[in-house]
Amino acid sequence: MADVLFEKVAFIGVGLIGSSMARRMSADGLMSEIVACARSEETRTKVVDLGIASQTFEDPAAAVDGADLVVIATPIGSCGAIAQAIAPALKPGAIVTDVGSVKQAVVDAVAPYLSAENAFVPGHPIAGTEESGPEAGFPELFDGRWTILTPTDGTDAEAVEKVKVLWQRMGAMVDTMTPSHHDMVLAITSHLPHLIAYTIVGTATDLEDDLRQEVMKYSASGFRDFTRIAASDPVMWRDIFLNNRDSTLETLQRFSEDLTALQRAIRRGEGDVLEELFARTRKIRRGIIDAKQAY
Amino acid sequence: MADVLFEKVAFIGVGLIGSSMARRMSADGLMSEIVACARSEETRTKVVDLGIASQTFEDPAAAVDGADLVVIATPIGSCGAIAQAIAPALKPGAIVTDVGSVKQAVVDAVAPYLSAENAFVPGHPIAGTEESGPEAGFPELFDGRWTILTPTDGTDAEAVEKVKVLWQRMGAMVDTMTPSHHDMVLAITSHLPHLIAYTIVGTATDLEDDLRQEVMKYSASGFRDFTRIAASDPVMWRDIFLNNRDSTLETLQRFSEDLTALQRAIRRGEGDVLEELFARTRKIRRGIIDAKQAY
Repeated sequence: MADVLFEKVAFIGVGLIGSSMARRMSADGLMSEIVACARSEETRTKVVDLGIASQTFEDPAAAVDGADLVVIATPIGSCGAIAQAIAPALKPGAIVTDVGSVKQAVVDAVAPYLSAENAFVPGHPIAGTEESGPEAGFPELFDGRWTILTPTDGTDAEAVEKVKVLWQRMGAMVDTMTPSHHDMVLAITSHLPHLIAYTIVGTATDLEDDLRQEVMKYSASGFRDFTRIAASDPVMWRDIFLNNRDSTLETLQRFSEDLTALQRAIRRGEGDVLEELFARTRKIRRGIIDAKQAY
Repeated sequence: MADVLFEKVAFIGVGLIGSSMARRMSADGLMSEIVACARSEETRTKVVDLGIASQTFEDPAAAVDGADLVVIATPIGSCGAIAQAIAPALKPGAIVTDVGSVKQAVVDAVAPYLSAENAFVPGHPIAGTEESGPEAGFPELFDGRWTILTPTDGTDAEAVEKVKVLWQRMGAMVDTMTPSHHDMVLAITSHLPHLIAYTIVGTATDLEDDLRQEVMKYSASGFRDFTRIAASDPVMWRDIFLNNRDSTLETLQRFSEDLTALQRAIRRGEGDVLEELFARTRKIRRGIIDAKQAY
């Protein structure tokens, strides 16, 4: 079939992102065969029951045998160990990619293990839900969303192009930038918002029981929007903060300064300062709607 | 008609909430006549064009003439002046209610102007969107949402009951609590989340132009959820923070302490602290889904 981009694809990790990719690739015939590696037997059973892969493995090295494309789709803290495990088993010419939310740390952890015969094309689809696990995936997850690729100077251009085409065929728009720039942009758009949401929902969990019940009951007034974000996968997010520490702390510092200024304006009763800021932030929403990332 | 709860209803302010109430009351035949007061001619024209009220007025006192129910639905900073203006024109026995997001400050501002013949039943529907203006309203806005009434000891029980039945007939569930307790609960569920969202979106607006464009482009990764909240009406929110200052600053203090602790955990690389918090916050989302305030 002319549309097949890769003969055999191996997924290491089959959560929300991995299983969505696999479903989309199968649905659109972008490969001939999909195999998957998952640590827990429960997940491997689900993957087979859901028809996501034809074969599953506990051992990553066994999974990548003969694969033309390997997708590492685990929490980023484990990427290095996985690279080390699979490197000797990779087919010459096989492309390795990942979907991690932090890029510099993943490049640093993975690249040293791979030989010149296996290009590593780091990637990050800006898509997701607060659900996790193979059952949470769906083939349309990437439609109209951005995927960022962060190849380094040495990355084989042909391999980058193949991964780019794969993402486009899965419905995504693709951008390319350096790993460090990616990490700074994502610190603002994703890591800081998650940090804030986790904090505010955490503050609420510390309330006395009665009050916490009321907070859930009346959550439609704003709080609810934060709980969706703060329901994201705990291990995945632990790894993100540990691996994008500097950019996250830097943006957090900016945020804290701005929050202190707003706090002072409230304490002093400076209505004009508040109104001016609130009018300014409203325009950003319009910009996002214009960028077709909200409706 | 047996279903009519009030003969004539006057709305002072016809934004998202006021116009949604008026539409629902008309749709379900809960009153015989609706009149509306709006400061700007543009709004009055819209209200007539949209068929929301049979008559419009610039002067609040003229609007309440002969009304059995008066709904104050303006930003809360103007409630006191409106009460002062309408008090002499109120029909004996007319009930006054409001929809403000802060209750103690509104009670303090409105109650002193009203005579014993006019019960004031403070209310707050926990419902809304980031849109504003009469064209943004829709009759189903209150379906399945909570409305909180905060009568004081002296409030006429029969009047409270009538307003309660009105909200139930508009699709809402009704709770009653003291004004000060309301303000504390809402500081956590609504005012703090909005403050945080305004701050983080404000932080983004201060970025250099290129970076701000990228933030909007990749906003689907978390930031976007904050921009929806931070697009809410600037004047309404200015008044909320100025009028619920103490509770907002107190909850902000708790939040800041928790954020500092999380910041330290990231700086020190304490993955177990992060993972434990993130697992805890995930459960709150489940509680909200169980309370049928999210799906």
